[in-house]
Amino acid sequence: MKPLRNLAVAQSGGPSMVINQSLAGVVLAAKAAGPAVGRILGARHGIDGILKGDFLDLRRLSPAKLEAIAATPSSALGSCRHKPTEEDCDRILAALLARGVGYFFYIGGNDSADAARIVAERAAATGAPLQVVHVPKTIDCDLLVNDHTPGYGSAARFVACAFRGDDLDNRALGGVKIDVVMGRDAGFLAAASALARQRPDDGPHLVYLPERPFSIPRFTADVKACVAKFGRCVVAVSEGIRDAKGTLVAAKFSSERDSHGNLQLSGTGSLGDLLARAVKEKTGIKRVRADTFGYLQRTFPGMASATDSAEARAVGEAAVRHALARAKAGAAAESATVVILRKPGRKYAVRFEARPVQAVAKNTKSMPDAFIAKNGHDVTPAFLAWARPLAGDLPPCAVL
Amino acid sequence: MKPLRNLAVAQSGGPSMVINQSLAGVVLAAKAAGPAVGRILGARHGIDGILKGDFLDLRRLSPAKLEAIAATPSSALGSCRHKPTEEDCDRILAALLARGVGYFFYIGGNDSADAARIVAERAAATGAPLQVVHVPKTIDCDLLVNDHTPGYGSAARFVACAFRGDDLDNRALGGVKIDVVMGRDAGFLAAASALARQRPDDGPHLVYLPERPFSIPRFTADVKACVAKFGRCVVAVSEGIRDAKGTLVAAKFSSERDSHGNLQLSGTGSLGDLLARAVKEKTGIKRVRADTFGYLQRTFPGMASATDSAEARAVGEAAVRHALARAKAGAAAESATVVILRKPGRKYAVRFEARPVQAVAKNTKSMPDAFIAKNGHDVTPAFLAWARPLAGDLPPCAVL
Repeated sequence: MKPLRNLAVAQSGGPSMVINQSLAGVVLAAKAAGPAVGRILGARHGIDGILKGDFLDLRRLSPAKLEAIAATPSSALGSCRHKPTEEDCDRILAALLARGVGYFFYIGGNDSADAARIVAERAAATGAPLQVVHVPKTIDCDLLVNDHTPGYGSAARFVACAFRGDDLDNRALGGVKIDVVMGRDAGFLAAASALARQRPDDGPHLVYLPERPFSIPRFTADVKACVAKFGRCVVAVSEGIRDAKGTLVAAKFSSERDSHGNLQLSGTGSLGDLLARAVKEKTGIKRVRADTFGYLQRTFPGMASATDSAEARAVGEAAVRHALARAKAGAAAESATVVILRKPGRKYAVRFEARPVQAVAKNTKSMPDAFIAKNGHDVTPAFLAWARPLAGDLPPCAVL
Repeated sequence: MKPLRNLAVAQSGGPSMVINQSLAGVVLAAKAAGPAVGRILGARHGIDGILKGDFLDLRRLSPAKLEAIAATPSSALGSCRHKPTEEDCDRILAALLARGVGYFFYIGGNDSADAARIVAERAAATGAPLQVVHVPKTIDCDLLVNDHTPGYGSAARFVACAFRGDDLDNRALGGVKIDVVMGRDAGFLAAASALARQRPDDGPHLVYLPERPFSIPRFTADVKACVAKFGRCVVAVSEGIRDAKGTLVAAKFSSERDSHGNLQLSGTGSLGDLLARAVKEKTGIKRVRADTFGYLQRTFPGMASATDSAEARAVGEAAVRHALARAKAGAAAESATVVILRKPGRKYAVRFEARPVQAVAKNTKSMPDAFIAKNGHDVTPAFLAWARPLAGDLPPCAVL
C-alpha cells in the first residue's frame, strides 16, 4: 500500500501554558522532514474536528505566526473532552485516510492517549497505513512512565508564585488561608506550592495530597497546631483529596461528569468554602479565607517555565521523528507515545523515548512515597529537588 | 514646643503589589532629608504595632534590602483592619510622642485615611507637634479625588492577564466561564478585565460592575445572547455587584464584617458558584464554570506594573516632603493625603498634590459614567484609554 504522506495533529483535554509549543514542535519537525511529509493539517477541537472535517492548513503559517502561537497559552487548535466510541473511531480513521493522512499526532493526557490507542487499533485491524503518536501533556503530571509531562512545570511555576505571594498576604493580615490547587488524581501540582518557601516559617505550612487519606478532624487539628506555632497558617489542598474510603471530598458538591467519567472538580469554589467553614467551626479562629486557583493555573500568559516550554516543543518534534522513522521502515500501524525520562546525574537533563501508548493510556500515576513527608501533610526535600528545575526560578521576595 | 524629628510609618488594609514601594519611598525621602529626620520607625501591623510598641528601625536596612522589600508584594510591615476608637487614638498619639515622633505616615485606603484623620485631630486638639500624612493605596482604585491609586495598576495587570489566558481556555473548550474580580464598592478592577481583549471576539464578553444594578434574569439572558453570538461566553463580575435595592448579591452568603463594617467578600467562591448555577438552570448550557480570583489579584509576585511601582514610590516620597515642609514652616498638627492627579495631554503623566485627608477619608469613588457602556455590562473606549498606561503592556497572545 502506498504510504500516505499527509499529517494531522490535534489537541485534547485541559489546556496548558505550553501545549502550543508541542504543536509548533510537530509542525516544525514535519516541515524539516522535506518531501516525506505532505500537508500538515490541524484538526479543530481534537477528534471533534476530525469527525466534522474541520481542519486548518498549518503549513501556511508563517514562522513568526507559528512562534507567536507557540508562546501563547491554551490549545490554539481548540480542545475537546470527547471520548470516541468504536463507531467514532471508524469514522475518524476514514476521515484521516480520506485526506491522505498517514501520521496522526494527538497532544493530550491519559484519556487522549487512550483515544489515540483506540484509533490506532482500528487502523491496525484494517491494515490502514496510519502511524498514531500521542504527545504527552498534563498539568497534573500524572502520566505513567514519564518522569514529568509538559504543562506541569509552568503550572507548578504559577502555583509556587501564587503561594509565595499569598503567604506574604497571610503574614500581613494573619489568620488561616486555604488555597485549592488543581490535580484530579495526583498531588504533584498541590505539592508545587512548597516551592514557594524561602524561609523556615514560610507557607504553605500544610500540604494535602490525594495520595493520603484526608480527614476533616485531623485537618482542623493540624491547622490549629500550625496557628499555635506560627500565629498563622497557609494551607495547600489538592482538589483531588479523598477520604479514607477513597471518596473525593469534592464529590459532596459536584455530580457533573465528562464523557470519560471524570467528576467536575475545577470551576467551583465549594471545596475551599467547605474547608474554611470546618476550620471556623472547629478551631474558633475568626479570619479564615479560601481561594480556589481554578483555570488560571493552566493558561496564565507570561508564566510558562523556560524548561517546560523547551521540552514541550522537543516532545512534539520527537513524536514526528518517531512516526517518520516507523513509516520509512515500513512498520505497520501502531500507536506510540513519547515519554520524558530524566537522565541520571546531578545536572538536570532529559531524554525522549517512544513507547507503546498502552503504557500511559487510561491509568494515572500518583506521587511516589519518597515525595511525601511522613506526617502526610507536606512534601520531602526529594520532591523539591525534583520539581525545582521544572518550575524554574521564582521572583525572590524579602521580609522584614 | 521643640519639633520632634523622629518618623513613624505603618501599612494598613488589604496588601497590594506595590505598597512596599511606598514604604521604600517614605524611607528614602526621610534619609535624603538629612538631620531634619531622626529615627525612622516602622510600626508592625498598622496602628496595632503603635499601640503595642512594636516598631522596627528602618534606618538600619541596607539599600539592597530596602530595594528587595520594595520589589516584594504585600505589606512588609504587616497590616491590620483595626478601626481605632477615640481611646485608641489617644494612646496612639501618646505612643508616637513618647518616641519623639513628629511625622507619621499611614499607607492605606479610605479607612486608613480616616484612622489618620482621627489621630491627627487628637494631635491638633492637644497641640501636639505631629504631622500625619496618609499615603494612598488601594487595588480597588476607589479613593476620592485621586485619578487612580497605587496598587490598582498592578492588580489591573493581573486581572487583564488572567482574562487573556482564561479567554483562550474558553476558546479551546467552550461553554460559559464566570470570573469574580475584587472591588468592594467600585468596578475599576473588574473593568480592567477588558484590557485583555486583542480581537473583536475576545472575552470578557460581559463585564458587570457595582455601579449598575445587577439582575440575575438579565444576566442569564445576556449570557444566553452571548453564547448565541460567539458560541461561548467569558464573564467578568465584580464581587461588589448589587441588586436594584443596592444590596450586595454576595450578602446572600456572607455575614462576616470587619471593624469598619465591611462585609467579607473575598476568600470565598460562593458568588461565582451562585451565578454559575443560575446560568445552568436558566439557559440549559451544560459547561458553566466559575473562578474567583481572590487574593492572587493583590499579591502575585512578578506582576507589578512598572508605572504603578514608580508612582507608589513617588507618592511615599512626596508625603515625606510635604510633612517636612509643613514642619519647617512651623505649621500646626494636621492630617494630609497625597493624591495622584493625571496631567492633561495625550501622553501619560501624573503629578502629586497634598490635600486635607478629609477629602479621601471614609467615602469611596465609583466608576464615572463615561467609563461604563450604555448597555450596562461593558466598559467604554475611554476607560480602556485611561486604564492601559496604568496596567502596562501585557504578554501578546495569538490565535489560529
